[in-house]
Amino acid sequence: MELLQEYKKIRTRTKEICHPLKTEDYVVQPIADVSPPKWHLGHTTWFFETFLLQPNRPDYEVFDTDYNFVFNSYYESVGKRVIRTHRGNLSRPSVEDIYKYRDYVDAAMETFLAQPLSLELQQLVMLGLNHEEQHQELLYTDIKYILGHNPLLPAYGSSPFTAATAANNQPASIPIKAGIYEIGHEGDGFCFDNECSRHKVYLNDYTIESAPETNAGFLSFIESGGYRDFRYWHAEGWDWVQQHHVGAPLYWHLVDGQWFYYTWEGLKPLDLATPVAHISYYEAAAYAAWKGMRLPTEFEWEVAARQFKWGQRWEWTESAYLPYPGFKKAPGAIGEYNGKFMVSQMVLRGASEVTPPGHSRITYRNFFHPHLRWQFTGLRLAR
Amino acid sequence: MELLQEYKKIRTRTKEICHPLKTEDYVVQPIADVSPPKWHLGHTTWFFETFLLQPNRPDYEVFDTDYNFVFNSYYESVGKRVIRTHRGNLSRPSVEDIYKYRDYVDAAMETFLAQPLSLELQQLVMLGLNHEEQHQELLYTDIKYILGHNPLLPAYGSSPFTAATAANNQPASIPIKAGIYEIGHEGDGFCFDNECSRHKVYLNDYTIESAPETNAGFLSFIESGGYRDFRYWHAEGWDWVQQHHVGAPLYWHLVDGQWFYYTWEGLKPLDLATPVAHISYYEAAAYAAWKGMRLPTEFEWEVAARQFKWGQRWEWTESAYLPYPGFKKAPGAIGEYNGKFMVSQMVLRGASEVTPPGHSRITYRNFFHPHLRWQFTGLRLAR
Amino acid sequence: MELLQEYKKIRTRTKEICHPLKTEDYVVQPIADVSPPKWHLGHTTWFFETFLLQPNRPDYEVFDTDYNFVFNSYYESVGKRVIRTHRGNLSRPSVEDIYKYRDYVDAAMETFLAQPLSLELQQLVMLGLNHEEQHQELLYTDIKYILGHNPLLPAYGSSPFTAATAANNQPASIPIKAGIYEIGHEGDGFCFDNECSRHKVYLNDYTIESAPETNAGFLSFIESGGYRDFRYWHAEGWDWVQQHHVGAPLYWHLVDGQWFYYTWEGLKPLDLATPVAHISYYEAAAYAAWKGMRLPTEFEWEVAARQFKWGQRWEWTESAYLPYPGFKKAPGAIGEYNGKFMVSQMVLRGASEVTPPGHSRITYRNFFHPHLRWQFTGLRLAR
Amino acid sequence: MELLQEYKKIRTRTKEICHPLKTEDYVVQPIADVSPPKWHLGHTTWFFETFLLQPNRPDYEVFDTDYNFVFNSYYESVGKRVIRTHRGNLSRPSVEDIYKYRDYVDAAMETFLAQPLSLELQQLVMLGLNHEEQHQELLYTDIKYILGHNPLLPAYGSSPFTAATAANNQPASIPIKAGIYEIGHEGDGFCFDNECSRHKVYLNDYTIESAPETNAGFLSFIESGGYRDFRYWHAEGWDWVQQHHVGAPLYWHLVDGQWFYYTWEGLKPLDLATPVAHISYYEAAAYAAWKGMRLPTEFEWEVAARQFKWGQRWEWTESAYLPYPGFKKAPGAIGEYNGKFMVSQMVLRGASEVTPPGHSRITYRNFFHPHLRWQFTGLRLAR
Repeated sequence: MELLQEYKKIRTRTKEICHPLKTEDYVVQPIADVSPPKWHLGHTTWFFETFLLQPNRPDYEVFDTDYNFVFNSYYESVGKRVIRTHRGNLSRPSVEDIYKYRDYVDAAMETFLAQPLSLELQQLVMLGLNHEEQHQELLYTDIKYILGHNPLLPAYGSSPFTAATAANNQPASIPIKAGIYEIGHEGDGFCFDNECSRHKVYLNDYTIESAPETNAGFLSFIESGGYRDFRYWHAEGWDWVQQHHVGAPLYWHLVDGQWFYYTWEGLKPLDLATPVAHISYYEAAAYAAWKGMRLPTEFEWEVAARQFKWGQRWEWTESAYLPYPGFKKAPGAIGEYNGKFMVSQMVLRGASEVTPPGHSRITYRNFFHPHLRWQFTGLRLAR
Repeated sequence: MELLQEYKKIRTRTKEICHPLKTEDYVVQPIADVSPPKWHLGHTTWFFETFLLQPNRPDYEVFDTDYNFVFNSYYESVGKRVIRTHRGNLSRPSVEDIYKYRDYVDAAMETFLAQPLSLELQQLVMLGLNHEEQHQELLYTDIKYILGHNPLLPAYGSSPFTAATAANNQPASIPIKAGIYEIGHEGDGFCFDNECSRHKVYLNDYTIESAPETNAGFLSFIESGGYRDFRYWHAEGWDWVQQHHVGAPLYWHLVDGQWFYYTWEGLKPLDLATPVAHISYYEAAAYAAWKGMRLPTEFEWEVAARQFKWGQRWEWTESAYLPYPGFKKAPGAIGEYNGKFMVSQMVLRGASEVTPPGHSRITYRNFFHPHLRWQFTGLRLAR
Repeated sequence: MELLQEYKKIRTRTKEICHPLKTEDYVVQPIADVSPPKWHLGHTTWFFETFLLQPNRPDYEVFDTDYNFVFNSYYESVGKRVIRTHRGNLSRPSVEDIYKYRDYVDAAMETFLAQPLSLELQQLVMLGLNHEEQHQELLYTDIKYILGHNPLLPAYGSSPFTAATAANNQPASIPIKAGIYEIGHEGDGFCFDNECSRHKVYLNDYTIESAPETNAGFLSFIESGGYRDFRYWHAEGWDWVQQHHVGAPLYWHLVDGQWFYYTWEGLKPLDLATPVAHISYYEAAAYAAWKGMRLPTEFEWEVAARQFKWGQRWEWTESAYLPYPGFKKAPGAIGEYNGKFMVSQMVLRGASEVTPPGHSRITYRNFFHPHLRWQFTGLRLAR
Repeated sequence: MELLQEYKKIRTRTKEICHPLKTEDYVVQPIADVSPPKWHLGHTTWFFETFLLQPNRPDYEVFDTDYNFVFNSYYESVGKRVIRTHRGNLSRPSVEDIYKYRDYVDAAMETFLAQPLSLELQQLVMLGLNHEEQHQELLYTDIKYILGHNPLLPAYGSSPFTAATAANNQPASIPIKAGIYEIGHEGDGFCFDNECSRHKVYLNDYTIESAPETNAGFLSFIESGGYRDFRYWHAEGWDWVQQHHVGAPLYWHLVDGQWFYYTWEGLKPLDLATPVAHISYYEAAAYAAWKGMRLPTEFEWEVAARQFKWGQRWEWTESAYLPYPGFKKAPGAIGEYNGKFMVSQMVLRGASEVTPPGHSRITYRNFFHPHLRWQFTGLRLAR
């Protein structure tokens, strides 16, 4: 019964996130990385229909057989799918139809969850809910991108979050002693496959900052010419800066000599004390080089994380996204979940202001390509 | 007062065309050539606001100063604009706001039109209305593309048009004698600048078919391997066929060995007697070569047009879109209307089933790039 | 026997054009439109081997069966071929091997031409020689591009041409009366299929300048901001200017405030009195618009050409490249020669300083896409 | 004096590698990753001129001031440079001129090396020689690509290498015990900055194969459908396979049902016992997944390497190319050497048959993007 309550709570929260949107906001896809909100609504529903209801409820009737083509994201095992870059071309199914789809699947799931389930099925439901929570976070970031790149710069509404609080006044460097440490998920709680298996790593002596870098720090980087000095940049980061004329984090606007920042409530003067957000890995690494420091590895971050406050920004690490010792892909479609992305991406640790409550873990491994910055990405320095 | 009636009638018809749409259908832009319906609604309104109300009504207050950026199409004289390929990224202004914008401008225009106007202003209003009628036609073609490329293949509704009637049973070849003929607009009625000035051309003896080619003809072309035989194609047409894997007109679907066609009412068996539609210039020219014939020039078409029935399809001609002798661009933004497109496009003559009533003329010069086929384009043979 | 002499003379001239090159210069292809000189040497030889020797000399042994793949340009009838953009990747066959190939084919051709030939075969040899002369012109333009885009800006040698002479001091406008004129090739001499058939056109009154526009004129256009004022440009020409940052004709270099021009002898101060060269159709049309005039049609040009001096520059006309009335493609591979390019290109008339002697005709129709300017292209104004 | 001998020996070997080439082979660049051989000859010479002679020999006169633009590879500190993809457009400087350039710089270097040098300068010379040796390896791989992608498939000559020997008959799995190991360069010999600093890592229990995988193994992978089964592939690897129609390692040719392989001596039947070469990281990882195993990390490889034979193939590892603890970029241009590439690439360990003698080390870290396979890349399995 707890699972049923959890199911209802999480499914309801998804709808609440979309509540301030106009119908039109559900439809568009300004860049390939952003999905239309209505696609998120359908896709998370499709997950429960496809992996829970269809295999385990013989009497279940699929809502609409065409939806598999539309709402499959990347599961090669489950048939053809709309190419990611085409999602924004689809006016149908309508938003109203997708909400009907949600209601239909929710009704069936609630019946399903009211009965006793095997441990395996319980875990699959948990996976579906964690999957939905990941999409809640993507909904926030994609909505911000859609509204924040509209020439009218409309507000989402009053901010759903307490503003990211200023860093404490005297950030301190936390020293960690060299030695063997344990990394990865421990215990019985839910985790994704990429957090396993728990294993030992050896770390050298290092220090890590107690607070993430702020807008004030990034403004100094800008003002001292950091975006125009190749010495701080990776070669491909420097190409990226040149090609896209990058000169500030995403959502920063220089208006008549003053810096503004696009927020949930529209364009506001830049708050210097807030942790910097919406930077690429290239920018994080260049900033660190400019400071004469570096990014921590994901292991250094995990070992030290109990000694500092985290959770406002996804923090870029100097670790590539690779399998842990003993990592195993699950068989079938579920096994496509994480392993197949383990190349060419960097690990981010922590969580952000738009991460669903209870969805963050000290062992959670987020990952993105190094040029991406529409997520709430920031950094913390190490040495 | 007639102008006012005409204004109301045409503006109302635009809304009627959009009436069967869901809000989501107004927003998307599946290819660069297609504009979101809501953009058409805003852009045609912006035309009246920008070229009529602002210069001639000193007390007129612009509805929203940001709209110029959003709804300017290609007028360099009138400031920056959203790049054509980005129109589908804009969720705002909302459909509702754009209808409010229409109402606001319509109210101002109706006051404006209730007073006596100079001849020049009357002509400018007429230009705005003809411009809106062109966009009515684009609305139909863009809506068909949006719905007809959705994986759910939704119907628009019951067909707004009587089905294109079958060709008469015995199409005849119409012979025309060589000699000097007059080409271009004549008289006092409205015309676009590209139809002027009226001038003489010399034509050699030719014959032209009394009816356009049908789906049956195109099916024979397909079945005899016409799409796979380079000899019938222009070099760049052949490249286009290879690159896009083209094997039939747009909206043709081969399902279990039978040909279907996407119509306003959804997918239907292909009607063989109907004039073929939705073909590129490359396809029209290849078909003609396969028949051992050719396309008429736009002059041959115009001279013969009183002797045959036309108006169901835009008919590709063998003429490039170039200025007539004595063509002059108007000064200012209005002068950007036609002349600047006079390179790399081909002329189409006639009209199509979605051309607004009264908007077709024997001297009307439509023009598109040779690879485009989302319009209701067909062909008529000559020799 | 005259044909044999002609064959020897033209084949020798091709080698003379390449004489100043280093081996490395024969190999590279800096842009898709430019072919490596060694490719021209091989391709023109392949033409005689494929269309003359193989079908008509049963005992002829092909020099190397792989060469068809390498040296076929675009003849779909004659098998697969190296894609145009890949020609510069081929280090083999070596320059030495290609010269051996030429010698081998020349020996066979000379034996072949020593015997009596049917009229049809004589015409095919003439086509091959005219084809080779076209490639002689391309050799000059491609060599200029290869050397003129090398950062060392090496000279080709002492100029093979008398400098294009200055325009006469008082260029005059030549008036032509309206009426019916005859256009196209007349008589027994060689012509390409695109010059046929001779036919009547009606021209309105017009005037055409007695001299082409000069560098001085184009410098005024530059200095008065012509490249930065959209009003003079076609829409796609304006896009081209923006995208490629075009601000002057090709081969113009602004060094310390002074204009230089890359010539056969290296970089030289710009000669103001010379007819402007190396401009695109877009630039020619924009310049004409800036002058308040226009380009002549190809028919206007042909009718007036006996009254002015021409031959230093290919002159852009306002005519698209389309078939004449009565144009027929020859059957087989030879028929691929001209007709399949009759879309999306503009006609140029005249000849240029690098056109082979005797290869220019008042009815000759050259054609290029509107953005190209590596040929010796200029313009003459009309009104 | 030993340094002088070493200098002469290495510089001479570079010329010997190029000896079988025709002049034309020095010029072309079929893909961006491949540089023209003459560019390698010039660039390695430019390194000594720019970093040794110019700063330390005040009387040294630069051979040609334009060469810096042509032969600078990616050193932002040393001025503008020819974009990598344009190197194949440069016919000049000629091959002959570049050999003169080498002779000129060699003469100056030999005088320079005949005198006593500071330790720092000796190390810089050593860096230049190691740099030249890296380019010797690239010369081999680039020459193979140039000849092996020519439609004539010319041989390089008689093979410069003893054929990669067959794997021993009974490859064994080598077990390694979990524990702390030391990684990275040790001692006084030359190493690149990316091999430092030596540091501890913790490894879990693992086994690694005593021999690399062979062509026979890869043929089984092909024949069992490995290239057509998405389950074995990373998502971006699967996209790469689809987009480029990859179905076998590079240089494999299926002719009439039999597999051939392009070698230094031309096309030969595939030798099944040889270690597989010319595969991408994606292919290596997919093959390992198909075998139910994995690639070793670079640390696992280094720790076990004394227990197996290596050096015929660069072996893809499961490690991304990232800095070691304590890694420091050198200041100035030399510091651009390795660090700026530490993102988005994978580490390869070992050496290949074309690696210069004495240039391989157990701590050497090679790195390439995961899709590249023109190097002699193979794999070894771990578990």
